[in-house]
Amino acid sequence: MPATGKPCTAADLEPVFCKELIRQELDNDTAQFEIPREIRDFYRMFRPSPLVRAYFLEKALGTPAKIYYKFEGNNTSGSHKLNSAVAQAYYAKAQGLKGVTTETGAGQWGTALSMACAFFGLDCKVFMVKCSYEQKPFRREVMRTYGAEVTPSPSMTTEIGKLINAEHPGTTGSLGCAISEAVETAVKNPGYRYVLGSVLNQVLLHQSIIGLEAHAAFEKLGERPDVIIGCAGGGSNLGGLIAPFMGEKLRGERDYRIVAVEPSSCPSFTRGKYAYDYCDTGRICPLAKMYTIGADYIPSPSHAGGLRFHGMSSTLSELYDQKLMEAVSVKQTDVFAAAVQFARVEGILPAPESSHAIRAAIDEALKCKAEGREETILFGLTGTGYFDLTAYQAFNDGRMEDREPTDEDIRLSLEKLPKVKE
Amino acid sequence: MPATGKPCTAADLEPVFCKELIRQELDNDTAQFEIPREIRDFYRMFRPSPLVRAYFLEKALGTPAKIYYKFEGNNTSGSHKLNSAVAQAYYAKAQGLKGVTTETGAGQWGTALSMACAFFGLDCKVFMVKCSYEQKPFRREVMRTYGAEVTPSPSMTTEIGKLINAEHPGTTGSLGCAISEAVETAVKNPGYRYVLGSVLNQVLLHQSIIGLEAHAAFEKLGERPDVIIGCAGGGSNLGGLIAPFMGEKLRGERDYRIVAVEPSSCPSFTRGKYAYDYCDTGRICPLAKMYTIGADYIPSPSHAGGLRFHGMSSTLSELYDQKLMEAVSVKQTDVFAAAVQFARVEGILPAPESSHAIRAAIDEALKCKAEGREETILFGLTGTGYFDLTAYQAFNDGRMEDREPTDEDIRLSLEKLPKVKE
Repeated sequence: MPATGKPCTAADLEPVFCKELIRQELDNDTAQFEIPREIRDFYRMFRPSPLVRAYFLEKALGTPAKIYYKFEGNNTSGSHKLNSAVAQAYYAKAQGLKGVTTETGAGQWGTALSMACAFFGLDCKVFMVKCSYEQKPFRREVMRTYGAEVTPSPSMTTEIGKLINAEHPGTTGSLGCAISEAVETAVKNPGYRYVLGSVLNQVLLHQSIIGLEAHAAFEKLGERPDVIIGCAGGGSNLGGLIAPFMGEKLRGERDYRIVAVEPSSCPSFTRGKYAYDYCDTGRICPLAKMYTIGADYIPSPSHAGGLRFHGMSSTLSELYDQKLMEAVSVKQTDVFAAAVQFARVEGILPAPESSHAIRAAIDEALKCKAEGREETILFGLTGTGYFDLTAYQAFNDGRMEDREPTDEDIRLSLEKLPKVKE
Repeated sequence: MPATGKPCTAADLEPVFCKELIRQELDNDTAQFEIPREIRDFYRMFRPSPLVRAYFLEKALGTPAKIYYKFEGNNTSGSHKLNSAVAQAYYAKAQGLKGVTTETGAGQWGTALSMACAFFGLDCKVFMVKCSYEQKPFRREVMRTYGAEVTPSPSMTTEIGKLINAEHPGTTGSLGCAISEAVETAVKNPGYRYVLGSVLNQVLLHQSIIGLEAHAAFEKLGERPDVIIGCAGGGSNLGGLIAPFMGEKLRGERDYRIVAVEPSSCPSFTRGKYAYDYCDTGRICPLAKMYTIGADYIPSPSHAGGLRFHGMSSTLSELYDQKLMEAVSVKQTDVFAAAVQFARVEGILPAPESSHAIRAAIDEALKCKAEGREETILFGLTGTGYFDLTAYQAFNDGRMEDREPTDEDIRLSLEKLPKVKE
């Protein structure tokens, strides 16, 4: 904990998080959690999600590789985020809470949580990173349609928001700021708790439905992936997608290459440090050991998609540190070029986040072509880009820019990491 | 034909339409058309579409009725329009054409056609009804992403567009105008033909995939619908959904109630006349016998969704005239109220068009409740509302208005029907 320097306990977390979710977060012993019937009933409305062989993309690339994608976008939130949102809303309702607070960046998590809260009759307060709020008025409107209250962050409704606005006038916000505001709001409102759509163990647990379904589908097909590729911001999609495969890898049953893809404008794996850091800009959440580029880091406003969290899931960070997975970073203009190429042959207009994985999958397939090598590639197509047309417009108009942090930017940001004795 | 007063022939249509599509249009003998492999391969990317039991909606309504919906929104065009777009693009490509032209109202057809053209490598010129073009900038951007050229209609790029702009300065456009512009552009550009997303026999033929799948799914479930409900603008979705069921009804094998739902601001079935009329405002297309409120009719700009064509599919018109189906009209504020109610329990944010069917299905289910009557309801959930958030925002803000034509409006519009001897 930032205040005590000691490992946090369930009691420390109870003012902030739902009880059952804390149990899931801190549990190191339970091998499998039963999915409650109410959550399975909700899942039936959009799951199992399809595992698709990208025949037309393979043909367009002329690659000997087989490309599969697990498509999580066939629901109104437009992404995999709904998998965890419904679980978290269910546990909040079961605890008798009045509502939940959260932050959202690209808006997928906020939409997913709004949908889940509407379903379970919970109040929902969303702090939306200001630059996304302005770029994506329709995202806000979907959340409102599902009954959520949406506030651009940093706002003037919280102490930390006022402080950040005073220190950084005109800031376009960051997930770190928005998390601080959402946590503060949960703690100050009786009957509310804070929920988070990525990074945490509980979220990776809920998202493991993606990997479990993909694994079952490959079994049924009598095939298996050689390489598994996923975009990584906080790690929720990648962690969920690889879960059963990484289990086999850890138990020495099978080997898989696993590749995390992150934006070059927010490169926590590829240019960050494995260290204890704050999860939020306001420094009120527990510290976590993770790959990070520093809690104050804010990606360039030219960065269009999500994947803008300064840190990374602790679980994935440990796997990466142990060299059980790889990471690459990609430029957003290359990402959108891959997105358009994919859309035109496979039909689906992908989310910018998901398109990071498309970029890496295409690059891998082209490498197979160059080397005359067959290989089975699985990537996570986490969502659709229907609310990201402002970014597509910038790309279509040739106005999109790539802005990476300099080494000096990262050095300065990492200098502020907390000093923690391990 | 408007010029000759005689039934049109394949030769009359060839400067405008693709050859194979003309054959399908005029064919009265072929019982079944084989779907080419290339089209079936494309369908595999998003079909079969799910037939969903709306358990949560039933529960929310407390109805003894069973409600099923056939959901066509799980593709980037966001609607059933892709079913016909891919067929039309395929036949255009097979004929060796360079490109196609079309009109779009709400934007779903234009998006679908853009996707299909990108896939088959055809050029695509879309005339988009001006009020939709302005209300839905992101729809335009999706089409551009798939490589289409999008022009607001009436434009100054065609003779008919210039004329309409001169006669009605500041007009927000209509499907009728946009059709005229698209046809003119096709005829004037070598290697181009015009394609249409609704109304025509060929489109109903392509859309029968919806009904065929639904029928097969009901067979598998061992159930069958008592009532089939679909929204109706030009009739493509309803015609496709009911195809095999109507076949059984016509052959006296089974009876079904079939209900067309139209907006009260564009009531061609419920307040129009069964007569020969022009399909387009510019009066260059063949006449068709259909329910119509007159080729010059333009719905109030307050009308948010699609379903804005002044006429109705000839096939459906004949069925309606023979009392083989019913029709109701609904107000758009009631439609959006049903949309929000549906979204919050069933998860999917529906298109305004589809929500006309939801409204009627909910009303039917509530009638079952009042009368203590069990019944199986099937409705077509034709698409998603992800690009219709401006309309949702107006509804959420309480700014949405209902504007119906007066009897005098309709009388004046019907006065201009062409005089045709039958």
